[in-house]
Amino acid sequence: MSEGYNELKPAVRTLLGPGPSNVHPRVLQAMSTPLVGHLDPEFLKIMDETMGLLRSVFQTRNRLTIPASGTGSAGMEAAFCNIVEEGDTVLIGVNGLFGERMCDVAERCRARVVRIDGEWGKALDPDPFARALRGNKVKVTAVVHAETSTGVLQPLVEISKLTKAYGSLFLVDAVTSLGGVEVETDEWGIDVCYSGTQKCLSCPPGLAPITFHERAMEALQHRASKVQSWYLDFSMIERYWAGDRFYHHTAPISMIYALCESLRLIDKEGLEARFARHRKNSDALKAGLEALGLKLFADPAHRLPSLTSVWIPEGIEDAAVRGQLLREFDLEIGGGLGPVKGRVWRIGLMGHSSNQANVLLALAALDQTLNRQGYACSGGTEAALNEYKKI
Amino acid sequence: MSEGYNELKPAVRTLLGPGPSNVHPRVLQAMSTPLVGHLDPEFLKIMDETMGLLRSVFQTRNRLTIPASGTGSAGMEAAFCNIVEEGDTVLIGVNGLFGERMCDVAERCRARVVRIDGEWGKALDPDPFARALRGNKVKVTAVVHAETSTGVLQPLVEISKLTKAYGSLFLVDAVTSLGGVEVETDEWGIDVCYSGTQKCLSCPPGLAPITFHERAMEALQHRASKVQSWYLDFSMIERYWAGDRFYHHTAPISMIYALCESLRLIDKEGLEARFARHRKNSDALKAGLEALGLKLFADPAHRLPSLTSVWIPEGIEDAAVRGQLLREFDLEIGGGLGPVKGRVWRIGLMGHSSNQANVLLALAALDQTLNRQGYACSGGTEAALNEYKKI
Repeated sequence: MSEGYNELKPAVRTLLGPGPSNVHPRVLQAMSTPLVGHLDPEFLKIMDETMGLLRSVFQTRNRLTIPASGTGSAGMEAAFCNIVEEGDTVLIGVNGLFGERMCDVAERCRARVVRIDGEWGKALDPDPFARALRGNKVKVTAVVHAETSTGVLQPLVEISKLTKAYGSLFLVDAVTSLGGVEVETDEWGIDVCYSGTQKCLSCPPGLAPITFHERAMEALQHRASKVQSWYLDFSMIERYWAGDRFYHHTAPISMIYALCESLRLIDKEGLEARFARHRKNSDALKAGLEALGLKLFADPAHRLPSLTSVWIPEGIEDAAVRGQLLREFDLEIGGGLGPVKGRVWRIGLMGHSSNQANVLLALAALDQTLNRQGYACSGGTEAALNEYKKI
Repeated sequence: MSEGYNELKPAVRTLLGPGPSNVHPRVLQAMSTPLVGHLDPEFLKIMDETMGLLRSVFQTRNRLTIPASGTGSAGMEAAFCNIVEEGDTVLIGVNGLFGERMCDVAERCRARVVRIDGEWGKALDPDPFARALRGNKVKVTAVVHAETSTGVLQPLVEISKLTKAYGSLFLVDAVTSLGGVEVETDEWGIDVCYSGTQKCLSCPPGLAPITFHERAMEALQHRASKVQSWYLDFSMIERYWAGDRFYHHTAPISMIYALCESLRLIDKEGLEARFARHRKNSDALKAGLEALGLKLFADPAHRLPSLTSVWIPEGIEDAAVRGQLLREFDLEIGGGLGPVKGRVWRIGLMGHSSNQANVLLALAALDQTLNRQGYACSGGTEAALNEYKKI
């Protein structure tokens, strides 16, 4: 190699931040599979298999269930820009960064955005949704199922029922839940649901699995105007994925190899077993953090199994601790965002990263690091091990 | 694995279509590198290296020179949506599918589009650009450097000078040229230039390298409205890549590993040597095709070294030949698009795929397949070998 350019040998990290999570070796191996063309009969078979497996994870029969060619945020944009037109009223629940982002995205689609604001760290109450739906002709109601910025798991069924009662489409962000926490797209009456590959699916970032119910497809088909994004226009992308295979854009082939492989791993594990694993490891982590004397951030009634948020103790500096964890333990955890920047940590246990060894590592590493920073604590790993002993 | 799911073992193809091209083993290996986080100090270094190497390939000093998180078409959309606002006049040269696509993308950005139509297979004449620039207040003038649908290489300098004379920004699609054919962004006065990774850069599809000159950045900074795409909004993405590293969306880490590695390979080979290699192999292929009695499609004065288009002989069926090439030789070549669908083939020799062995394989395989289909021909490989003997 030319002088000055290094070999590609980044550190080997344990990824317990808000995503990406660690990728299973089989999925990494799939990434390096030599490519076939995006119209090759062998690739079309892989596309079909990927769609089938995605339907299982989304628990849906929706025909249009595909990976959009971008990261989770592209999924958010695809969800809004395909069904929202200029002047449409969109109702958005905001109790974290990703609800905020939804408002921004919807406004760029020229929607009239009605916000339902809630407290960061708490779930949203359905009542204000009922009032807003009553008082407005709402085309789309959108909420975040798993708020990555707070670690809150949002109950969806009541809000979904309200949207049905008032003829609104129901749009859900499942970026940090899909594949780690129940997402029952059909059973819960979700019309558009999107996710990202780098969280509980444990794939590298780069694709946004997304599913459209027929109700959403109808809204797309009856638009008065073209979708403002050519790249994410599902009226065309549908033809390539689920229609006559008409070329739209070159599919990100290697990423789809990886997603397909990660979905096979999920299929093998089984959704129920996978959800139970996420709950178990999360419970152990939470018990350990509390034993260390730390206070959890999210409302106890609505805590995510895939991401745990915890207050940073008084007097402890965020960056110093996270830097030390990275340097001494090759361990990544996440910092806070928005109003809780510098005040909470976010510890992800997603997909392949959700295992007992990582829980114990996180607690032991935090124990040592916090003690060195002058915060006396102990007993984290013991509490976690006790939690594992429970059935 | 569960019953019914296959191992991921697609056929090993020689990819001589319009992209993706074959990926160098080192780049495939980079794809399977375990991930670090998108804000990890080690990843930030890889981002910096990638930007530096991209600047070399684009031959630019533009600070904002990055891979956008989508395929080449996302690059096209990013180019337009960041600098075009509602009502802006955009002048677009159309002599192939990708010029057409530009019009569609610009219209979705609510531009007033003025088309300069040209013949498929011929380069665009600067004169109508001069007239249109004189008669309109044109904010952006856009052309395709290497028309993947026709195999035409568009000269850019004269059109660029006209844009400067009339105060228009100059936007160029270099999807099928960057890394295989000269693209002198700064020297030629290009303001926005984008590409894709799966052509002459020989990386998997999934990223769109793009560069913005200060003139384009100014247009972005002085917008009256927000960029309509949140996902591709470079006023925010710039902060993550070239500013204070503020989180925007999770970068497609593995794809960036791969791009970085492919750019290192280009740097090692040297741009001039790489361009010469593309020309040499293309000349040999063209000589061989003509020896087989086939007629080339693109105007001889403006033929692309990275993609050769050739008329399908009378009475020969497109799908039968391409199917046989794939089945018997594991060889992919491309069919025609739009008005020349079923009438031309497109043979790419891009990046890692551009080598003597592939030229000889393509000619021998076409020879055998065409003869079986009743088209008598011979002498393709000999003509190519003679071409290689020339200095």
